[in-house]
Amino acid sequence: MTRTKLIEQIRIKRNYLCVGLDTDPIKIPPFLNNFADPVFEFNKRIIDATLDHCVAYKINTAFYEASGTSGWESMQRTVDYIPLTHFRIADAKRGDIGNTSAMYARAFFETLDFDAITVAPYMGEDSVRPFLEYENKWTILLGLTSNPGATDFELRRCEDGVMFETVLRKASSWGTIENLMFVIGATNADWFTHIRTLTPNHFYLVPGVGAQGGSLKEISTRGLNKDGGLLVNASRAIIYASSNEDFAEKAAVIASGYANEMSAYLNNNG
Amino acid sequence: MTRTKLIEQIRIKRNYLCVGLDTDPIKIPPFLNNFADPVFEFNKRIIDATLDHCVAYKINTAFYEASGTSGWESMQRTVDYIPLTHFRIADAKRGDIGNTSAMYARAFFETLDFDAITVAPYMGEDSVRPFLEYENKWTILLGLTSNPGATDFELRRCEDGVMFETVLRKASSWGTIENLMFVIGATNADWFTHIRTLTPNHFYLVPGVGAQGGSLKEISTRGLNKDGGLLVNASRAIIYASSNEDFAEKAAVIASGYANEMSAYLNNNG
Repeated sequence: MTRTKLIEQIRIKRNYLCVGLDTDPIKIPPFLNNFADPVFEFNKRIIDATLDHCVAYKINTAFYEASGTSGWESMQRTVDYIPLTHFRIADAKRGDIGNTSAMYARAFFETLDFDAITVAPYMGEDSVRPFLEYENKWTILLGLTSNPGATDFELRRCEDGVMFETVLRKASSWGTIENLMFVIGATNADWFTHIRTLTPNHFYLVPGVGAQGGSLKEISTRGLNKDGGLLVNASRAIIYASSNEDFAEKAAVIASGYANEMSAYLNNNG
Repeated sequence: MTRTKLIEQIRIKRNYLCVGLDTDPIKIPPFLNNFADPVFEFNKRIIDATLDHCVAYKINTAFYEASGTSGWESMQRTVDYIPLTHFRIADAKRGDIGNTSAMYARAFFETLDFDAITVAPYMGEDSVRPFLEYENKWTILLGLTSNPGATDFELRRCEDGVMFETVLRKASSWGTIENLMFVIGATNADWFTHIRTLTPNHFYLVPGVGAQGGSLKEISTRGLNKDGGLLVNASRAIIYASSNEDFAEKAAVIASGYANEMSAYLNNNG
């Protein structure tokens, strides 16, 4: 998906919500176990119910890999089911030496038809480049993440700022605003204003709203730019809103609540 | 596998070679395409031929994921085929927030029966902990990697040494020498003596010998400790030693060459 098309979707839908499909086979309503692929059946119903309230879906690959081959099948079915109007993110946190990153890019951009993949920056430029070489595909590089461990290395003071600032600065020269986004966790609202000065035009994928406690209001008022520039993800708060047969309906209610709140922030933003 | 058993294998076999199964379906001898699972058939023959010349196998997950579900099946078959005398590494470079890393740990330590997984440190302690919680399983954390991009962040000067030194220092307090190793690339021989002073008793997984140009002699003389303390990996140099029907035989010749050289370094080391 191109940047123009993504921005257009945000304008049409009046939200920048990403629904995270961190689907745990143990947590889905038991009646779904009567279906051949319960995880896909769960995702299908979540997608059908939330389609009008979001612009993106994020598949957390770990939850599928935990089931081995059958999990990989559920992932394939799910990404194929998401309509092309929606931005499809593989939250995979991959990254390795060049020839290996090229294989990961093939896995998620060719074998599976994702629009974007999250990538870990530790190994540097040649570990990121292979993902950036695909036209109309996106690399979403970890910047400042939402978890407590962000203080260990990402916020370490280095020769030219804290580590994640160096990541943002260097990576901005590897990709463009057309193929590179950053992960900036919602639990770091205090940093958002500063981060926007470093990368004013990039999109950020923002996890950490909902179960992790980040404030949608704070990150929206500080993080939105003229194109929107945010994809705010919520996973557990939406997909596990109910553990009964009404799970998809309840997921839609929560997603619609986020979408309405986002609509107000977009209006304030002009 | 326990540390004691790993050291015992190194003592018995008189080498510390890890054979890297970076198996690319495009690069395997064409006659194997007559088999139901050509990638597994290739790996099986490589394993049979090299078993006596190595102590570990490393499966590079990217090469399997690039083929989607069928690749995941080939990976499952391969790890099941490696005998329990050998240390089985998933070179997967995973790492995410705690609840997600727990799912990756389940994928590679339960669904697939690996002894170890490579993990990226960027997201900090809570992204690494779930892997360390498994008894007799190993976390192999990226320290200083073998690729050019290592200079971008890993070698960045920070408040208390370069970044990878901070990773080694901090992570050493999260795990023990019984469940934590570090990736230290063979292309960084100059750093090995210093790294041994920081982590004298840890095992290192050392990629970069062979196709990437690292010197086995230099890293062995500087990196070996009283328990061996090294697992030196070669992938392409071994598995693609020949592209003909004799590929397994030729792989054994190269592996045996490495093993013999290692035997001499072990003798010098006492």
